[in-house]
Amino acid sequence: MQRAIALIQCPDQTGLIARITALVAHLGGNIIAADQHTTAAEGGLFFMRLEFTFDPSRSPRQELESSFSRLAHEIRAQWQLHLAGVPGKAGILVSRQTHCLADVLHRVREGLLCMDIAWVASNHEQARSLAGHYGAPFHLLPAEGKALQEAAILELAKGTDFLVLARYMQVLSAPFLKAYGRDIINIHHSFLPGFKGASPYQQAWDRGVKVIGATAHFVTEDLDEGPIIEQRVQRVSHRDSPEDLKRKGRDLEQQALAEALLAYTEHRVFRHGVRTVVFD
Amino acid sequence: MQRAIALIQCPDQTGLIARITALVAHLGGNIIAADQHTTAAEGGLFFMRLEFTFDPSRSPRQELESSFSRLAHEIRAQWQLHLAGVPGKAGILVSRQTHCLADVLHRVREGLLCMDIAWVASNHEQARSLAGHYGAPFHLLPAEGKALQEAAILELAKGTDFLVLARYMQVLSAPFLKAYGRDIINIHHSFLPGFKGASPYQQAWDRGVKVIGATAHFVTEDLDEGPIIEQRVQRVSHRDSPEDLKRKGRDLEQQALAEALLAYTEHRVFRHGVRTVVFD
Amino acid sequence: MQRAIALIQCPDQTGLIARITALVAHLGGNIIAADQHTTAAEGGLFFMRLEFTFDPSRSPRQELESSFSRLAHEIRAQWQLHLAGVPGKAGILVSRQTHCLADVLHRVREGLLCMDIAWVASNHEQARSLAGHYGAPFHLLPAEGKALQEAAILELAKGTDFLVLARYMQVLSAPFLKAYGRDIINIHHSFLPGFKGASPYQQAWDRGVKVIGATAHFVTEDLDEGPIIEQRVQRVSHRDSPEDLKRKGRDLEQQALAEALLAYTEHRVFRHGVRTVVFD
Amino acid sequence: MQRAIALIQCPDQTGLIARITALVAHLGGNIIAADQHTTAAEGGLFFMRLEFTFDPSRSPRQELESSFSRLAHEIRAQWQLHLAGVPGKAGILVSRQTHCLADVLHRVREGLLCMDIAWVASNHEQARSLAGHYGAPFHLLPAEGKALQEAAILELAKGTDFLVLARYMQVLSAPFLKAYGRDIINIHHSFLPGFKGASPYQQAWDRGVKVIGATAHFVTEDLDEGPIIEQRVQRVSHRDSPEDLKRKGRDLEQQALAEALLAYTEHRVFRHGVRTVVFD
Repeated sequence: MQRAIALIQCPDQTGLIARITALVAHLGGNIIAADQHTTAAEGGLFFMRLEFTFDPSRSPRQELESSFSRLAHEIRAQWQLHLAGVPGKAGILVSRQTHCLADVLHRVREGLLCMDIAWVASNHEQARSLAGHYGAPFHLLPAEGKALQEAAILELAKGTDFLVLARYMQVLSAPFLKAYGRDIINIHHSFLPGFKGASPYQQAWDRGVKVIGATAHFVTEDLDEGPIIEQRVQRVSHRDSPEDLKRKGRDLEQQALAEALLAYTEHRVFRHGVRTVVFD
Repeated sequence: MQRAIALIQCPDQTGLIARITALVAHLGGNIIAADQHTTAAEGGLFFMRLEFTFDPSRSPRQELESSFSRLAHEIRAQWQLHLAGVPGKAGILVSRQTHCLADVLHRVREGLLCMDIAWVASNHEQARSLAGHYGAPFHLLPAEGKALQEAAILELAKGTDFLVLARYMQVLSAPFLKAYGRDIINIHHSFLPGFKGASPYQQAWDRGVKVIGATAHFVTEDLDEGPIIEQRVQRVSHRDSPEDLKRKGRDLEQQALAEALLAYTEHRVFRHGVRTVVFD
Repeated sequence: MQRAIALIQCPDQTGLIARITALVAHLGGNIIAADQHTTAAEGGLFFMRLEFTFDPSRSPRQELESSFSRLAHEIRAQWQLHLAGVPGKAGILVSRQTHCLADVLHRVREGLLCMDIAWVASNHEQARSLAGHYGAPFHLLPAEGKALQEAAILELAKGTDFLVLARYMQVLSAPFLKAYGRDIINIHHSFLPGFKGASPYQQAWDRGVKVIGATAHFVTEDLDEGPIIEQRVQRVSHRDSPEDLKRKGRDLEQQALAEALLAYTEHRVFRHGVRTVVFD
Repeated sequence: MQRAIALIQCPDQTGLIARITALVAHLGGNIIAADQHTTAAEGGLFFMRLEFTFDPSRSPRQELESSFSRLAHEIRAQWQLHLAGVPGKAGILVSRQTHCLADVLHRVREGLLCMDIAWVASNHEQARSLAGHYGAPFHLLPAEGKALQEAAILELAKGTDFLVLARYMQVLSAPFLKAYGRDIINIHHSFLPGFKGASPYQQAWDRGVKVIGATAHFVTEDLDEGPIIEQRVQRVSHRDSPEDLKRKGRDLEQQALAEALLAYTEHRVFRHGVRTVVFD
């Protein structure tokens, strides 16, 4: 028996759950978990995540795919089918600060995040030994010029399924995003939409907020405006200097990124417009 | 069109979701929300909550009930069917402290909690004027003896669907619980299972904890051991005296009780053994 | 023995704590609590809150005041001296939503907030009976025009020490603020600086945030830009509609406002620029 | 100029703050931060932490010490004097799970925790390569028998200032604790006092709690009863299996231990009885 995960997103219509679950039953699948969400406010969008076991000798993956494809056509759905436990290939970009990278690498080694780290790349040397310790190939990006850097990343990114910006302090250009065309997950060190752009902890300190945050989101052409996957927050006080905010925020960054990657690699995240559906 | 909520709890078996959702489709119902949970650890229990609209002129409630009853028999399920927006009748018991009562009354008035407050009863006078302001009948319980008190409560409770202990400082006896036979929701002023019994804030202070809590749970014969519906917590420090813990805990009690009542009155809570399933 | 609270704010300089505490010792005072904060980042500001008991027959309040005044002159300090337990007089403004008002009224009655509610005023009728139940005079503001409204408020506010905007949906004009000249505490229904202005819950929903908040702050001429006293946050998900955000935010509003008022009435809040110092 | 931290703990008495701060002023010190706490409930204990700069050419450390010693004798105080930024020497004990160790090692390398890791020791091999990567000597403890193990630890621990149990799954014996005689900080994987002893996540799951926690505390002879330094909590639901609780708890363990070590290494923690004072 194998375990598969199906993601379906389509206009809301009567009888959707019955049709989809009937298909799985028809294929001999046994549903382990089913989540769905319907949003009225946006004109009726339906989202479903199904986790089910199936017997590949009876229903080979190809048959699953063609069955889902047929149904998806009828209900005008976007869909994906994943085998559980098959790790996606990720490239990780990082600058000087390595705490998020260290945390992700350790979680992957401990089996807490199901993803293959194809490589770690950086415009700085700090991450090299850490990547080495965890057996991830390290690439130093060219220092001279954004175009060269992005060309290098694009070359590295060829075999990847998604990219992770684990405190990568460069803004990726619109042409790069278009060329890559797959998901890129960034960790921003503020509670978005507050404090976009540079030095968010200094901004937060200047404003005198009593709670700070970190935001993991998909990268889009609009800086710090992409769909939010996860946010973490923590209380601060007048005692905290801008440096204290950085130190406290560092933990929030790790937590938000780790939680976002967990949801993403377990295929629990849907994007639609600037919003996301993240099943528990 | 009317809206109904079905709750189903049965041993796990293949094809359950398909069968149940097919039944709703067959009855002309349109599913608005569906939640299910399967627990492997307990030998496979399946829980489902379905919210759907139906046309009572086409499928009258009686037909719904007989259809669900038939299916439930086949799959060995316990089940309930509720019409959405029909408030249950609650009796509220309270002692001297009225903050939870004030909060519940105000939420009911504002339409945030869908329940009818049949009466407020207390062994003290403090709650009388508050109940009066919100138009809830107030009953003063006899002061002399538990048996008389419980007899009075039982008499009052005849028409109720459930009871709420909103900081009621008496322990209800096993015979009372048996005689009442319906759900009773209590708010306990500690983070259970820590600090059962009397004076939990003093206990928490004595132990020097850095976080305190409050717990809303179903009442069972085992004091403070009933299934937990909701818990709320908050940081405290060495600066907080036992009185400060009481003041901070007071807010947690309100929040935990309100959240538990919201889940309960929206029919999102399942009990099984000492555990609960509380759908979001 | 009486209890007093002194607040001192001045440029940082060597030996401040020693001088100030020596003065209290000299006056026969016994320090119960002392908090201080020095901020390097702003060119060295020193903040101190002292709580001490004194014998008014030996050191009458007048002598305390003249002693503090002399010292304050020497160290170029702003200062305040309060007798503990003497409630300030507050006017409360509210619009249609009464949950924050209900919460404040109940806390004051229970003795959890030390303040006298001089009156409740509103541009709507909703709050009248609630104010009446708690014995607070209620004033209906004129409906026709901001200038008339503000003139009415100003007249009411004559004897007050501070105002509370407990979900008052009008923006107070700069002339009004200047004319009143004392502190005004507002509860804003978002996690500032995110989602200023109108309909913050809808804004939050549109942006797809995973955490919402509420902010209690001093009112200044810059809308939603005043010094923040307290913020409260809570997780939300794709399941939450804009209405759900409102319902969840309602609790955050109560909590943030109550906590801010507690700090303010216990004389634990300093304003400086757009920031605050709030001692625990 | 050097920076020093003085910790003072004594019976409460009039004029303490004035006397202590006057002493610092007399020594030419400039107070940067001062925290004090007085507890009435325990018969009047006074705790003070002073951070100040001083000129060692004018007031050498020896003179500071003798001055504080004299004062401490007069006010019957326990006291400590530390130079800021001088790291204490710590030994870390760990079993199979390395996430807390990895987190501590990375924080120390990044300069977020001021402590020297003298060695890492374990009854298992898992931590060896990680310790190696961060340049910490690794010692494998003898497998055969508690007495031998503890003798080995005691030998290693000779030059250390404190020990950290970073998920060390052995109970240290009373004779060991007596022989070592210095502070030992443990991370327990539950929200104490709930779920002491073995398998707390399974216990938490069995009880059906809605919030889990982790607790960093000083080790005493009473298992899981030592003074609590820090606690962290997180919501869970019926969806979470015992394994999910472990995974979520893992993050809480890291956070609580890191926060406790930060407070401890910054000399912000006082022990008294089963309670602690932890200044912010």
